[in-house]
Amino acid sequence: MIDLRSDTVTRPTDAMRQAMARAEVGDDVYGEDPTVRALEERVAATFGHEAALFTATGSLANVLAVRGLVGPGEEVLCESSAHIARAELGAHGAIGGVTMRTWTHPRGGVDAEWLRRHFAPDLGPYFVPTAAVAVENTHNFVGGTVLPLEDLRALRSWADEVGTRVHMDGARVWNAHMATGTPLEEYGAAVDSLAVCLSKGLGAPVGSLVVGPADLVAEARVWRKRLGGGMRQAGVLAAAGLHALDHHVERLAEDHANAQLLAEAAGVDPAQVDTNIVVLETDDAPGLVAAAREEGVLTGTVGPRVVRLVTHLDVSRADAERAATVLSRLTS
Amino acid sequence: MIDLRSDTVTRPTDAMRQAMARAEVGDDVYGEDPTVRALEERVAATFGHEAALFTATGSLANVLAVRGLVGPGEEVLCESSAHIARAELGAHGAIGGVTMRTWTHPRGGVDAEWLRRHFAPDLGPYFVPTAAVAVENTHNFVGGTVLPLEDLRALRSWADEVGTRVHMDGARVWNAHMATGTPLEEYGAAVDSLAVCLSKGLGAPVGSLVVGPADLVAEARVWRKRLGGGMRQAGVLAAAGLHALDHHVERLAEDHANAQLLAEAAGVDPAQVDTNIVVLETDDAPGLVAAAREEGVLTGTVGPRVVRLVTHLDVSRADAERAATVLSRLTS
Amino acid sequence: MIDLRSDTVTRPTDAMRQAMARAEVGDDVYGEDPTVRALEERVAATFGHEAALFTATGSLANVLAVRGLVGPGEEVLCESSAHIARAELGAHGAIGGVTMRTWTHPRGGVDAEWLRRHFAPDLGPYFVPTAAVAVENTHNFVGGTVLPLEDLRALRSWADEVGTRVHMDGARVWNAHMATGTPLEEYGAAVDSLAVCLSKGLGAPVGSLVVGPADLVAEARVWRKRLGGGMRQAGVLAAAGLHALDHHVERLAEDHANAQLLAEAAGVDPAQVDTNIVVLETDDAPGLVAAAREEGVLTGTVGPRVVRLVTHLDVSRADAERAATVLSRLTS
Amino acid sequence: MIDLRSDTVTRPTDAMRQAMARAEVGDDVYGEDPTVRALEERVAATFGHEAALFTATGSLANVLAVRGLVGPGEEVLCESSAHIARAELGAHGAIGGVTMRTWTHPRGGVDAEWLRRHFAPDLGPYFVPTAAVAVENTHNFVGGTVLPLEDLRALRSWADEVGTRVHMDGARVWNAHMATGTPLEEYGAAVDSLAVCLSKGLGAPVGSLVVGPADLVAEARVWRKRLGGGMRQAGVLAAAGLHALDHHVERLAEDHANAQLLAEAAGVDPAQVDTNIVVLETDDAPGLVAAAREEGVLTGTVGPRVVRLVTHLDVSRADAERAATVLSRLTS
Repeated sequence: MIDLRSDTVTRPTDAMRQAMARAEVGDDVYGEDPTVRALEERVAATFGHEAALFTATGSLANVLAVRGLVGPGEEVLCESSAHIARAELGAHGAIGGVTMRTWTHPRGGVDAEWLRRHFAPDLGPYFVPTAAVAVENTHNFVGGTVLPLEDLRALRSWADEVGTRVHMDGARVWNAHMATGTPLEEYGAAVDSLAVCLSKGLGAPVGSLVVGPADLVAEARVWRKRLGGGMRQAGVLAAAGLHALDHHVERLAEDHANAQLLAEAAGVDPAQVDTNIVVLETDDAPGLVAAAREEGVLTGTVGPRVVRLVTHLDVSRADAERAATVLSRLTS
Repeated sequence: MIDLRSDTVTRPTDAMRQAMARAEVGDDVYGEDPTVRALEERVAATFGHEAALFTATGSLANVLAVRGLVGPGEEVLCESSAHIARAELGAHGAIGGVTMRTWTHPRGGVDAEWLRRHFAPDLGPYFVPTAAVAVENTHNFVGGTVLPLEDLRALRSWADEVGTRVHMDGARVWNAHMATGTPLEEYGAAVDSLAVCLSKGLGAPVGSLVVGPADLVAEARVWRKRLGGGMRQAGVLAAAGLHALDHHVERLAEDHANAQLLAEAAGVDPAQVDTNIVVLETDDAPGLVAAAREEGVLTGTVGPRVVRLVTHLDVSRADAERAATVLSRLTS
Repeated sequence: MIDLRSDTVTRPTDAMRQAMARAEVGDDVYGEDPTVRALEERVAATFGHEAALFTATGSLANVLAVRGLVGPGEEVLCESSAHIARAELGAHGAIGGVTMRTWTHPRGGVDAEWLRRHFAPDLGPYFVPTAAVAVENTHNFVGGTVLPLEDLRALRSWADEVGTRVHMDGARVWNAHMATGTPLEEYGAAVDSLAVCLSKGLGAPVGSLVVGPADLVAEARVWRKRLGGGMRQAGVLAAAGLHALDHHVERLAEDHANAQLLAEAAGVDPAQVDTNIVVLETDDAPGLVAAAREEGVLTGTVGPRVVRLVTHLDVSRADAERAATVLSRLTS
Repeated sequence: MIDLRSDTVTRPTDAMRQAMARAEVGDDVYGEDPTVRALEERVAATFGHEAALFTATGSLANVLAVRGLVGPGEEVLCESSAHIARAELGAHGAIGGVTMRTWTHPRGGVDAEWLRRHFAPDLGPYFVPTAAVAVENTHNFVGGTVLPLEDLRALRSWADEVGTRVHMDGARVWNAHMATGTPLEEYGAAVDSLAVCLSKGLGAPVGSLVVGPADLVAEARVWRKRLGGGMRQAGVLAAAGLHALDHHVERLAEDHANAQLLAEAAGVDPAQVDTNIVVLETDDAPGLVAAAREEGVLTGTVGPRVVRLVTHLDVSRADAERAATVLSRLTS
């Protein structure tokens, strides 16, 4: 089976497993795990931020960052297909108590005019004030699209001007970095906080981080524990993350090339495919998924009429070619 | 001072006060207040629904209805200027734990195409499922606009087809009724629940109702108490509501005529003013508010560039004419 | 029927209704209702506190005060039959997110030794810190018992010493005041916040207040609105409260005398009955309630083996005598 | 340094690391990790329950189990030093919205008489109903005490009779099992749900489980994801847990023997020390902790006057002897 359902399905490589087996560990609830600390410091520095916090999932990283920026009774604005809106089982409302309003953009990007019209300053205890804007880079459900750096910078300027903050769901920010060459610190410089993930394109079994200012991260540490996410000898997982940062970033270019192949085969304009995700509109998404499975290709739906294909560490060039043949047949 | 800030500022008339003073009452936490019961039964019947529940505020009525339709981790879709999104201090997230996604419509109406594309069926424990769509009629912050009945009916059909529910924030549904002649039961027939308010155009000092099926209203009764809203001899307030239903519905036409006068004076196209609210875009909303106050006319802002004028029971024709003169001068 | 179920069942007197009908009102969401303001100022002054906030229910007053003192993840300590623990539909956890630990005292009083052993200082993000101790005076479910002033003062000293705060659920604090002669400001001086109620012994149809420091009350005002409790022309209710304070405090002595009569009749030691509530242990509480109802006396249960009798404004001496006869027969 | 602060500080052994490095894994969010599934099935069977769910922490396991038994507005009863009350950063209130009432028992055990008097049946929407009783076995903060099996069985009978449920915080239930010889299925048979932990005495780096009926566990799986705890290739952690179950249960007897040694040295009655935890009352807990640290022995406080010593996998007999010498000197 060639598994194109998600880049979360990757299994740790032998080298990664060895790194995990050798990891120096301690009790991270007491702040004593040296491998976790090394990972947190490295990732914070990568994005030019003060601090970072290791979490078991990308959802938790987003929840901790957004609730750090947006209190109960305040709002976060985001695109209407954002992962924080559509997925994460509604944790931002259910746990964080935040209000969300959304704009709609065909590629998941920023709608500066909508923001200008809908930003809500704090007018006293009646209206919901806008506490943050969240963007997603790359944007998952519309198809791994990269957020143009100039749009992000314009958002940053506007946010400074009106006095609001910017969070980036950067679960796949390394894909954006490899696709565009934009340095990661440029992304970091444009936002107040990020959630980044090691267990998607980078291939670690478990692990994400909240990145941001020291006080936000300190509060995230408390809430991580309250939400039941304060692991003990987490260094065994952090070691996989460090290994991934050393060995699995450059190779994302291969995933992107494989995605181009799949797009072409499936009749999707390759120019619309920025990274490792191809979304394919079809009248019967479940039908296409079932047919592909018959042929040894696992795919997934992100809506009743949308099939998603994701390339990753465990999909070789040969796998991609074979999947392309299958998809070409099924979609023609 | 002529107070155009909101139709919430109305003071009970002498006749209404007498009705309150004569009200037969009991302990409504025990379900024993006959006046509350009479009001609840009358309003339920008015909208053709099984049951209704008296609440101290329209916010509480919306919160109880929406949380009855939408569980934590589920989403409600609404227009991006909806009162449930922008106001109510974010209670739907903070108390109800719901996720919200919004579409944007210039008159606060339904965007059927957006709904078709963004409705999320329940695909299992990963995506946030759409549990309800909320509309507002009349729509407050865009200017008292009436939701066209055909749009509402189309929404109802679509909702039945895809399997979701419809809530109406009908804080000013009597204004819609008077402006269009649409029977209230037609509105009721198109939705699963309503929140309606007696202390806006109808002039009661305090009081709203949740209207809907018996089980939703029964659960709302429990949560009303949990939220600290289970009043005892509430019949003194319900009596004002009954009086308002008897005496203050037809006269809303006067408020609508006065709003036309204000619109014309303020340079707003009267054809855009459906009911008793005029919204006025201006570069400096606080400045205009301050200038009008100097001249004895109180107005309010619903955004940094939007002034709102609202006519009501305590604004006579003569008041409206005087205010029109002031506004004409200030906006020309 | 003689209704001994609760002192919440009282109906407004004619004089109170006239006060309501005459009330000067304004929009209290805008802070413009003079009668509400007068009531808030008067009650704050009565207890020697900076500020007070009018609420529709005693539950809401408790919820607002406790959540002002105790954040999510912190604890409030109280007696195990406290109203905030056993009633209010669990709002303190469900809305406030607080943790509660309880001690047990036969008369609902303070257990200083338990507090000394169980108080939790803030030891960092692991243990739940004690943010407040809540007492109830008079204590409802154990039988209207008065909290001895010396115990309250000792609690105050200890709380200052260890650095925690004290809330009083004073729904019936006027009963304590009349039963003991303790000035209300003495109670106020011993606590950081109170919730007091006008619609129990004092006979107003609706109305309670949060009393405390200005910042706590300001935050309570915001959360009152978020919880859907921000009423508009609430002065019609506040007027009843002001009337009650003028006319219904002294007469609580009559209720206390009537409760003595009932206690004696029902075989309860009158020395255990401090105010207007008699609790009666019996093997079959629902059976006794049903039997009394047959004889025209309504009573209630506060547990499967506990019947509660409450005297109030609408129970005359003659009513009490008649009820005593019935209860004497049924319990002998 | 000899680390007696907690049995959470253990580092994985070489053999455990090898088991982790060899683990077969899959994407557990999709239910496809065979090692996680094997662990869940094994632990469920061990306790004679239908199902189990792997979680990153014991806190998360308790939160998921308790919220599965106890809804917002309902209460869980527990002992006043229970981990769910005092620790877990108040998640049961803050996340689960539950009310808690507590009894007090010198050894953290069951107070059957208190329960009989304080159990609250569901009397309708006014009182908070008792939805569950939670016990802790062994009980952490009072000193690793074992809950007598006869008390647990009596609790079970009573709970069945009155219609409530029983949760066991069994973070250290293997210690209870080894100390008493009680089969684990006996513990399982007496309760509706358990939380058990592999990263305390058993020495895994990360990992706990919720154990219970299939529907409770299915709902826990959804809420685990909502709380950000849905890990991907969690088999690397589950493999450590399986290894621990194979190799680290029997050896808990050594920890218990070492705790006896420490108790004797520190002047604590060894008969009060049931398992691997010794709590030591002292006037100055921080002072004793600091003095011991000077001598190479790390200990911790669980209150201003309570020092806790915990033996575990990384404390050898020789370590225990050396620590005993130090503690003997410091406490004499």
